[in-house]
Amino acid sequence: RIDARRLEEAIRSFGRIGALLGGGVCRLALSDADKAARDELTHRMTMLGLVVDIDAIGNIFGTRPARAPDGAAGTVMIGSHIDTVSTGGLYDGTFGVLAGLEIVAALNDAAIETERPITVAAFTNEEGSRFQPDMLGSLVFAGGLPLADALATRDADGAVLGDELRRIGYAGDATGPENIAAYFELHIEQGPVLEREGIQIGVVSGIQGISWHAFRLTGRSAHAGTTPRAMRRDAGMAAARIVHGAYEMGARMGADQLVTCGSLRFTPGLVNVVPQEANLTIDLRNPDDDALRDAETALLAIARTAAAEADVQLEHRSLARFAPVSFDPALVAEVERVATGLGHTTRRMHSGAGHDAQMLARIAPSAMIFVPSTGGVSHNVEEYTAPDDLARGTEILNHLVLHWSCP
Amino acid sequence: RIDARRLEEAIRSFGRIGALLGGGVCRLALSDADKAARDELTHRMTMLGLVVDIDAIGNIFGTRPARAPDGAAGTVMIGSHIDTVSTGGLYDGTFGVLAGLEIVAALNDAAIETERPITVAAFTNEEGSRFQPDMLGSLVFAGGLPLADALATRDADGAVLGDELRRIGYAGDATGPENIAAYFELHIEQGPVLEREGIQIGVVSGIQGISWHAFRLTGRSAHAGTTPRAMRRDAGMAAARIVHGAYEMGARMGADQLVTCGSLRFTPGLVNVVPQEANLTIDLRNPDDDALRDAETALLAIARTAAAEADVQLEHRSLARFAPVSFDPALVAEVERVATGLGHTTRRMHSGAGHDAQMLARIAPSAMIFVPSTGGVSHNVEEYTAPDDLARGTEILNHLVLHWSCP
Ligand SMILES: NC(=O)NCCC(=O)O
Ligand SMILES: NC(=O)NCCC(=O)O
Repeated sequence: RIDARRLEEAIRSFGRIGALLGGGVCRLALSDADKAARDELTHRMTMLGLVVDIDAIGNIFGTRPARAPDGAAGTVMIGSHIDTVSTGGLYDGTFGVLAGLEIVAALNDAAIETERPITVAAFTNEEGSRFQPDMLGSLVFAGGLPLADALATRDADGAVLGDELRRIGYAGDATGPENIAAYFELHIEQGPVLEREGIQIGVVSGIQGISWHAFRLTGRSAHAGTTPRAMRRDAGMAAARIVHGAYEMGARMGADQLVTCGSLRFTPGLVNVVPQEANLTIDLRNPDDDALRDAETALLAIARTAAAEADVQLEHRSLARFAPVSFDPALVAEVERVATGLGHTTRRMHSGAGHDAQMLARIAPSAMIFVPSTGGVSHNVEEYTAPDDLARGTEILNHLVLHWSCP
Repeated sequence: RIDARRLEEAIRSFGRIGALLGGGVCRLALSDADKAARDELTHRMTMLGLVVDIDAIGNIFGTRPARAPDGAAGTVMIGSHIDTVSTGGLYDGTFGVLAGLEIVAALNDAAIETERPITVAAFTNEEGSRFQPDMLGSLVFAGGLPLADALATRDADGAVLGDELRRIGYAGDATGPENIAAYFELHIEQGPVLEREGIQIGVVSGIQGISWHAFRLTGRSAHAGTTPRAMRRDAGMAAARIVHGAYEMGARMGADQLVTCGSLRFTPGLVNVVPQEANLTIDLRNPDDDALRDAETALLAIARTAAAEADVQLEHRSLARFAPVSFDPALVAEVERVATGLGHTTRRMHSGAGHDAQMLARIAPSAMIFVPSTGGVSHNVEEYTAPDDLARGTEILNHLVLHWSCP
């Protein structure tokens, strides 16, 4: 009942919005490319007969009404995001949203009416590349971040989220569905586990904890040739030591503790000038919250020591902090049952990436379905998932949505 | 005979060209601000009756003719530079050039004719901030770098030096003086030694070796949450390890071995993306060439190990390599004699910074005079040297130039 070719065509079509020359897409949240993708999405929603609502943080909700307004309580929501990192692939987020549209299209084709409404949602700034924290739109929707704080967030160039939202015309006044019977998110795994083990479907039992940190080190710019070591206040040396120390700490803590320094930059950034300032970010992840807390404590100690040794000033900001989440056990079991029933091989797994489902789990029973990522590659223009895998995941999602919308 | 107030006014006036809001100047080589400073310099030279020549690499020579064309052989050259780092002070380089103009002005005022011509020179791209190597103009002038290679040099944004030279109108066709009887460079110390020891004049016996390195690490961008450590090719981790290792190596080698990582940047530079690429520079300095060579060998070994361990590709480029230089012993002794004769306290010292004199020493007897830098601060907007110190240095230079131009 799912048209796998139509879904593929939709994914390819969105892949042209913000396309990079060498493949992949750059569709940073609230950029012009994001606006173009939002325009295309709302257009498609309208064409499918969905009622489109935009909320104050720019989340897009397309709702297919139930047979009668007095049907079963709550909407069945299929959600994800259409923003990308700056060198992203075609599947991360977009697949889950377009799979939702495909399911609606299939219901329309078969003229099926449901007892519960069905809502396809695209949440704002899931990636966290441009504005922090990640999953910002779904976090606000779930009541985890005051709207005013979210709107005041600035990107690295100082642009204010609320201004950008207005600029692209997606500062809405709707509130979105108030009662969600179940939330489903279909996503590529973005990691290597399913492919490596030859398994078709990942039944996601939860998401690991995420902890993002920004450090600013302020020293004193000085001449690289004339300034004796003892007189230096070298912000760059301190930064390199923090990053090195963070990776060493991660290695000591074992395979579950991931450490990534994704951004590091010196000012003024000249070969013969001791850096005045260094800015860096550290991404810590761990499925165990206590262990993640240990890593955070260790990171701050490393940073303080490095800054003190280099006699530079240290500022620390938490950019995001999400505890590990376990999805609704009954819903997870149901995903597993449906997938197995359709004859697919499955595996329970934790998600390494953050997802909007992690936020939605605060307000509704939530679950996720993973399909394999070729080479485990994501946040990379070479991200790829085979059409058969996309179809399998969408088919499972379709069964779940049908079951929940026609209880 | 030197008008200290006129010199100060000239320095202040040049300090307005490319002035930064918070003080200091940004006059990167061949930028619009550099062009404005060059225009002002050549205008002042012309007003002083100097014959202005621009050579093919943009070096500016203003020559005050000798009494008779068959006077003593060779010109007496006073040189330095007027480009700055991006967050530079008012004195580095500019002081030496403007002291030359002040000496010419004083000769004009007193209507003194000399046996040898006097040339005030401003060399292109001494700082090396925008184009590498540093001292590029004087290096080409001294025959140490083919003109075509120098013109083909690119800055970090890919702009070609030769194009920029034409753009600002300073691609000349003169060759500059062919016979230099003596080369003098008056400069701020840029370090803390004179101030700390309460000495007025530094008699510069030589310049330490300079070795600049650029490293590019190419890994694979990947998702920070889903990519197990063993599957990462983390260019950022490798870069941090190189920088950390370089500083450790410097510390082990003792106070004479300076290490600076002035520039470090990740691509794509996002909090949750393992860096695809990292670019960094390392500046190594040592007064002893064998020790400098040891440091270079150690640095390359550190880089290779870090890259291999992170499974990332390593590219290395040498951006500059200048062996330590000793200035002409007789000329150095003469600087010392003149300074002492004028009643100033002196100290022989090596220069930590590179200078055009380091290149000129290849083709002419050369020497340098240092005056104290407040707090030892340079390559910093707070760079400062007191008017009395500027005057003392200029007075010594004046005596030396008079002696050599009227032998
Ligand atoms: N799915 C995904 O890539 N989310 C971005 C947030 C994260 O860094 O995990
Ligand atoms: N004098 C000076 O700052 N020269 C720049 C070249 C160097 O880095 O030493």
